[in-house]
Amino acid sequence: MSAPANIDLLIKARWIVPIIPENQVFENCALAIHKGVIQALLPQEEADKRYAPHQSINLGDHALIPGLVNAHGHAGMSLLRGYADDLPLVTWLNEHIWPLEGQWVSDQMIRDGTELAMAEMIKSGTTCFTDMYYFPEQAAQAAQQAHMRAQINFPIIDAPTPWGSGPEDYLNKGLALHDDFRSSSLVRIGFGPHAPYSVSNSVFEKIAVLSQEMDAPVHVHLHETAQEVADSEKEYGKRPAARLHEMGLMSPLTQCVHMTQVNDADLALLKETGAHVIHCPQSNLKLATGFCPVQRLIDAGVNVALGTDGAASNNDLDMFSEMQSAALLAKGVSGQPDALNAHRTLRMATLDGAKALGLDDTIGSLEVGKAADITAVELSALDVQPLYNPVSQLVYTQSGHRVSHVWVGGKALLLSGQLQTLNERELIGKARWWRKQIDR
Amino acid sequence: MSAPANIDLLIKARWIVPIIPENQVFENCALAIHKGVIQALLPQEEADKRYAPHQSINLGDHALIPGLVNAHGHAGMSLLRGYADDLPLVTWLNEHIWPLEGQWVSDQMIRDGTELAMAEMIKSGTTCFTDMYYFPEQAAQAAQQAHMRAQINFPIIDAPTPWGSGPEDYLNKGLALHDDFRSSSLVRIGFGPHAPYSVSNSVFEKIAVLSQEMDAPVHVHLHETAQEVADSEKEYGKRPAARLHEMGLMSPLTQCVHMTQVNDADLALLKETGAHVIHCPQSNLKLATGFCPVQRLIDAGVNVALGTDGAASNNDLDMFSEMQSAALLAKGVSGQPDALNAHRTLRMATLDGAKALGLDDTIGSLEVGKAADITAVELSALDVQPLYNPVSQLVYTQSGHRVSHVWVGGKALLLSGQLQTLNERELIGKARWWRKQIDR
Repeated sequence: MSAPANIDLLIKARWIVPIIPENQVFENCALAIHKGVIQALLPQEEADKRYAPHQSINLGDHALIPGLVNAHGHAGMSLLRGYADDLPLVTWLNEHIWPLEGQWVSDQMIRDGTELAMAEMIKSGTTCFTDMYYFPEQAAQAAQQAHMRAQINFPIIDAPTPWGSGPEDYLNKGLALHDDFRSSSLVRIGFGPHAPYSVSNSVFEKIAVLSQEMDAPVHVHLHETAQEVADSEKEYGKRPAARLHEMGLMSPLTQCVHMTQVNDADLALLKETGAHVIHCPQSNLKLATGFCPVQRLIDAGVNVALGTDGAASNNDLDMFSEMQSAALLAKGVSGQPDALNAHRTLRMATLDGAKALGLDDTIGSLEVGKAADITAVELSALDVQPLYNPVSQLVYTQSGHRVSHVWVGGKALLLSGQLQTLNERELIGKARWWRKQIDR
Repeated sequence: MSAPANIDLLIKARWIVPIIPENQVFENCALAIHKGVIQALLPQEEADKRYAPHQSINLGDHALIPGLVNAHGHAGMSLLRGYADDLPLVTWLNEHIWPLEGQWVSDQMIRDGTELAMAEMIKSGTTCFTDMYYFPEQAAQAAQQAHMRAQINFPIIDAPTPWGSGPEDYLNKGLALHDDFRSSSLVRIGFGPHAPYSVSNSVFEKIAVLSQEMDAPVHVHLHETAQEVADSEKEYGKRPAARLHEMGLMSPLTQCVHMTQVNDADLALLKETGAHVIHCPQSNLKLATGFCPVQRLIDAGVNVALGTDGAASNNDLDMFSEMQSAALLAKGVSGQPDALNAHRTLRMATLDGAKALGLDDTIGSLEVGKAADITAVELSALDVQPLYNPVSQLVYTQSGHRVSHVWVGGKALLLSGQLQTLNERELIGKARWWRKQIDR
């Protein structure tokens, strides 16, 4: 028998849900991790024989899952959480969010807001997020520094904003940002055209060419409301997705956020082009923008990821709560109680999210050779008893507050509920300071 | 100036949301409580002058709200939590829930399951619940012993069950139970006819007469699915609600659970008779049984309460999570982002629940003269910052796990997260024991 191999970290857990193989829960197994990469998933007794870990953690009442992928959000907006709820969409944007953004958005606000958002995401089990907001340099630096995985999409819109003067300015700044993070293993820069109704054809055409050349993702709000689709049909004689497709913008690099309006032609287009859908159920409900036909998309072979959207329209960044909403809503909308089952929902929030971001070779499942992006959830409390099926309890009982440990690339971001790369007390203080400024 | 009055308890809190007056949040105030009754809601400084409390609690980062009213559930089913998820309704009932109930339901199982359910409910801020399950004597005794407020509805169905031989037996046992609890200030016994499709006219007619004579509530699953309504139209030539009305069973004593199918005639009937609707959004979604038109009911003046349903179709008994689902879903279903706002949702889970149970003179708001049924929620954590509006954070961010203190009639059921009338460790042990029996 050979000598035990030296490895950095061994994590033992009561349950491990690797996502691949599908629908499996391994009991009393362990994950062996070295140089940030998963080396093995094996029974604990075998792990004790095969490995001499530098560090060993025993999570006896916990489930390990791949770190969650929050595929749509506006992290900086966490400072506007709950500022203006329960309003019609136009009132919300015109009288509250946009004036507030005009007055307050700055590089410092985005930095503080993004750090607050990341702290909340880490504490509720998210290891990778996409972002689309002003001052993306701040979000990119913040993610890199906190050691989170992120796709930061620089915003592009046919209007001046606190971040710049217009599309040309945004593209220049965004391409420079892309260069700055070219070598990062954690942060990828993408294009964030705001929406079909706020970006003109000439700008979309530039984005289509550049994104293909650079192999960079394109993240766009698409078919969020019936009004958006009706307006497009009137103005362009076609639906927004078809318009983007004509300009070469529907591809596996494209992340279509919301898609509450999907007719047969849209479905065929998504399937044919390999564009991804990002489903944001709580935001769609809260803003009453429609119901994304998730099960129909999945049945057609379209990849669907999951996102919280920003805290101003949610009001949290908890992907467990979002999974519960997604799983329940898919059943109600499809009329099928077996739609989007618990395993499938967890996959949507992990591997399918990774796939949408082009990261499914690296993350999204607990397979040998993948990065050790891992979330541990404690399942010992009274309110998850009796526990017949850990995946059911994870998805259907809002487990965000039960997250205990989080690793990204083998580096601990959360240990026993304590943030390791961000200062929780300081962030709460900053959030309170911003509230006093904004809410006079 | 008169001497300070002796009172049992003074609770100071950062925020108090009394429900009445409506849409109000009082800051840095206190509740004075004596002999289980609210004596005053007043500024903390004034409270210090006016009262000499036997006990004083200072909750500096907390919101006080009326204890939540969970208006529909099957507490004993908590032992089946997550046992069979993601299945078509017929498979779920025929192949899983009913065989399991036939094999396992006993007085001991109901006692243990009800205590587990109550522990979960107390820990997530519920002070009053309705129940409808076998061996209601056990549920009634358990509630009385744990000092929870409850309406226990004894089940009536045209079939033998583990609890009895048929309708006559159920009525006899139920009336005896009603007598046993006639003098209880906490537990009220009601009639629980299962559903229009499982109870015959002659039995409903008896219930109508008895419930009016006894001034006892009637709790019934009604219009849960489109199929139920279609079948009734075929068999009886009328919709279930109309059929119940003809037998004198639609009145302010009637609690209509689910009501996902509501046409104009149903709406008029509910309004005219004063029958209450109990909305169970997560159960309706999970079983894909339809969408209750909550905002339309409210706009018509129908009283709508909120319930979790049993843990087998939810999978938790957390009314905060249920409030979030209700508030979000009402917006999506009505297409109005200003539907069921945060304050209105909190009222649905408190005062409107109390009204449905005929208890709105006693509980449901933090008004002088009402029972001190109070829930405290800590709002200091990072994931509720910045805090512009405590009611938004309570409703839209699943605050169940933030509940710290709970009182019923001035008696503490939860202090700093610790159960006072139930043994948490023992209940977890029992739940695990039942899992081992059931899940062989």
